Formats: sequence, structure tokens, C-alpha cells
Amino acid sequence: MTIKESSRPGGRSARVQESIHNAVRALLEEQERSSVTVPQIAARAGVTPSTIYRRWGDLAALLADVALARLRPESDPLETGSLRGDIRAWAEQYLDEMSSEPGRNVMRDVQASATPGFCIAIIADQLQTIVDRFPDQSPPTVDHLINLVVSPTVFRILFAVAPLEIEELHRLIDIALKQD
Amino acid sequence: MTIKESSRPGGRSARVQESIHNAVRALLEEQERSSVTVPQIAARAGVTPSTIYRRWGDLAALLADVALARLRPESDPLETGSLRGDIRAWAEQYLDEMSSEPGRNVMRDVQASATPGFCIAIIADQLQTIVDRFPDQSPPTVDHLINLVVSPTVFRILFAVAPLEIEELHRLIDIALKQD
Repeated sequence: MTIKESSRPGGRSARVQESIHNAVRALLEEQERSSVTVPQIAARAGVTPSTIYRRWGDLAALLADVALARLRPESDPLETGSLRGDIRAWAEQYLDEMSSEPGRNVMRDVQASATPGFCIAIIADQLQTIVDRFPDQSPPTVDHLINLVVSPTVFRILFAVAPLEIEELHRLIDIALKQD
Repeated sequence: MTIKESSRPGGRSARVQESIHNAVRALLEEQERSSVTVPQIAARAGVTPSTIYRRWGDLAALLADVALARLRPESDPLETGSLRGDIRAWAEQYLDEMSSEPGRNVMRDVQASATPGFCIAIIADQLQTIVDRFPDQSPPTVDHLINLVVSPTVFRILFAVAPLEIEELHRLIDIALKQD
């Protein structure tokens, strides 16, 4: 596959990215995750390895980006009519996704990448969208929601025997809404 | 180095473990973490690889055990005279240790091991020691402290740009003490 130049601004860059993402997905279907290399991906995508290093920095960041692209919601967080309802719906979906095999791969890849911060930026973005819907209810800060709701969800998946129970997740959301 | 039989119960097993831990530490000083192998460790410790696999299951679990042994406190959590003070002292030390390079290695090795639960067991043990000192103050459960204090500490180290601020850590401890 080769990349064609485009007259639209960003068009070429977007197609390069799509072609590289497709190459990663194809290779991951054919072989073990740990055996995929940047030169392999570059060859499959029709780009040079330096294109990949320039854009993502390292293989782990690229794998994380591909994994995140699959998980990244294509629409805004669900609107349920209440702040508590919106956060619950988002947090339940997040717990569900992160407990899955692709979710665990995302977390592993993000940690191995040089820029783990971009993962938290996506989460913060979605939570900000929710709290911005309810400005008159003095909603908690996004940081507070990350500490009280996102952190225990992720910590239990990574280190505990079982993920967080839904009841406990709801309780943590209630605590987060009580503060601030 | 060879392992001698001992007449004390558990003595041989403890010496095998010490010799394997020493071999890991020595190899980690000489070479890259990612290049250390079980056969290398076994040769250095004077045991067979199967001794290591039988005891730890995999290399990651052994590396995690060695890293934890270094971090594992040799005494009970500090007694300050108050529940809040004890939890603060413990949590500040935990934040400090986990933000360090050995702390990050522990978290990586524990996640890569087949039994990540043993890490949470050590934490739970220390927190239980603290809450057991103050039975008449209806202390929070250990699980609640792990969700509200340990989880955000670890999450921020693994995924955020900067670790948790001490002020935020204190605030989370206050929230944990208000509940339950």
C-alpha cells in the first residue's frame, strides 16, 4: 500500500495514519503482539520507519494509539438527564471496556509508551463534557472524578483478583458527587 | 553458589530463596532488566530452572518478588497516635516509594506476573494493622482505603504527567475517613 499526496490540508497525514493503523491491525491478527516490529509495520503500510518514529516516538505509543482508536467513543457520553446518571453510564462503560482484553492491552501499551499522559487526556475530555452539561449543580472537578472513580476502576483491574463491583462503583460516584 | 541442606524446618527453602534473590540482584546490576533470563538466574543461584518455575511460576513474578522484598517494610507502619496521622504517614511513604524507579519496576513486574494479587495483599496487610489500632473510631474498611487512597496514588504515577500532590493525598484520606 502506498500513500498518495492530497490537496486537502491534513488529508495526506490522515491517510498515512490510517494506513499505518491498518498495518498494525493486520499484523496483530497474523502474529503475536510481542513479535510485531516498527520496520514490519512500515513495510506493510508503505512508509519508512522514521515516519512512524517521528509521529509516535516508539512502538508502544503506536500500539497504544491503535488500541485507543478502537476503544475511543465516536460520540459524546450518553445523556441520561442527570449528572449522576451520566457519570454512572460513562463509568460503567469504562469499567466494562477496560476489563476486556483490548482494554487491558491499551493500559499495558499506554504504560509502556513514553507519553502515558495522552490516555488521561481522552478520559478527562469525556468527563469534562459531562460536567459541563450541569454547570448549576456545582459538579465535581474532572480531577476529582479521575481520583475517585477512574483510579479505583483501573487499579482493581491491574492489581486485584477481581474488577470493581458495580455497587462499589456507584458508591464511589456518590462520594465524588458529595464533595466539592 | 550451592544450596546446603539444613536441619531447621524451612531453613533450606529460605536459603534457596535468598540465593535466588541474590542472583537476581547481582544480574540486574550487570545487565539490562529485559535481558535477564530464568536459566541465567538458576545458574547463578546454583539451582535448576524448574526450582524457580515451581516457586514463582514465571520470571515476572520472581522479579516482582525481588523488587517487593526491597520495598517491603521491615517494621509495622509508623504509630503517630491518631488514625489520620497513621494513614497519612503510611500513604506519604507509599507515594514516595512508588514514584521512585524501584517502585515503578515493582508495579511493572507485578502486572506482568500471573499473580498480581499478592501485591495488594501486602498493602491490605499494612492498612489492616493501622485500622486495627483504632477499633473505637469506626475506621474505614481496608478496601475503602485502597479505593480512595492507594488507587489514585498508583493511577497518577502510571498514567498522569505528575504524581499526586501531598495536599490532594491528604484530602483523599479525609474523604476516606468521613465515609463508613
